[in-house]
Amino acid sequence: MPSKTETRRENLRQRLIELGEAVITEQGLPALKARSLAVEAGCSVGAIYNVFPDLHHLALAINGRTFKRLGEQVAGAVSALTDTPACERLVAMGLAYLDFASENTAAWTALFEIDMAVGEEIPHWYMAALEVLFDHIRRPVAELRPDLSPEDVEFLVRGLFSSVHGIVWLGLQKRISAVPRHEISRMITLILSEIGE
Amino acid sequence: MPSKTETRRENLRQRLIELGEAVITEQGLPALKARSLAVEAGCSVGAIYNVFPDLHHLALAINGRTFKRLGEQVAGAVSALTDTPACERLVAMGLAYLDFASENTAAWTALFEIDMAVGEEIPHWYMAALEVLFDHIRRPVAELRPDLSPEDVEFLVRGLFSSVHGIVWLGLQKRISAVPRHEISRMITLILSEIGE
Repeated sequence: MPSKTETRRENLRQRLIELGEAVITEQGLPALKARSLAVEAGCSVGAIYNVFPDLHHLALAINGRTFKRLGEQVAGAVSALTDTPACERLVAMGLAYLDFASENTAAWTALFEIDMAVGEEIPHWYMAALEVLFDHIRRPVAELRPDLSPEDVEFLVRGLFSSVHGIVWLGLQKRISAVPRHEISRMITLILSEIGE
Repeated sequence: MPSKTETRRENLRQRLIELGEAVITEQGLPALKARSLAVEAGCSVGAIYNVFPDLHHLALAINGRTFKRLGEQVAGAVSALTDTPACERLVAMGLAYLDFASENTAAWTALFEIDMAVGEEIPHWYMAALEVLFDHIRRPVAELRPDLSPEDVEFLVRGLFSSVHGIVWLGLQKRISAVPRHEISRMITLILSEIGE
């Protein structure tokens, strides 16, 4: 049984993740600050650093949850489509990615804003969450391109993820390239429909 | 004939663009500061705002040059490939985009970092530079997919640009997704080889 101190630590950890998730969801990663989190959690700033080595690790934990939700939404888009051609399943996942990014823009942006410098160790559970996402893409890709080596299937899976990401990213940025959502959907559909044709 | 004042203004404008370009190329957009530019140009900070309404417009002028160089590199990759199948020309352009981004990472990143808020007017010459780039992609795409409506060709062109951009962006970010350059090339090649197959 965990000691009282351990339980208290774990409770604070969870509470900080939830509070931080709300901050990131509403205002984005740059708004995540120890001082205001401490006020909201009713603890000292020092107490935060007692359960997380730094804010980076808190942000990582929050991103891990976002990745999980993203994976679930993408998986949910194809779970009922067992008899659907592989190509349409790919499109459904791409559009689910767009939906998630549109509806959770700040949290989704935080996934790619977080500083993951080379050399720093990426937590195992983080890579596992990414793998779950790639797994869903891998199935239809392997069906559509049985001629490819396993290595190339892998490159195509990651390439397709990056492609859809690029379309959504540039499309949602309120910048030079911003485009209406139905046009983003159409781009995703056209690109993914090319696979294995 | 331009007056002496006009010539002096234009000279300062050009000099600031060149100095600013060096700053962005070496250190990236956030390093572009009026005070240090003034020191380098041997003028007052006020003189900068005499030729550019703000630093944003200076950055825009620099990005315009980067876009032009990018367009030339992409065009150069296919200019000699007149008898090459359209699909291979697409791949050559995608790889040229990767080369440019790898060799000019800070300047290329600045293209997408600059704040282009919706509602703000995008200069005509900026859109024109983007159009030149899309033109090069449009030719092989139209050859490969004569069945598509002109509107869908357009979506596919922009979708492919965004796809290659996404692969290069995620691949070059020293983050969770960073991958060796030959793997980025392979992803681009595999995705673009699917078009019109």
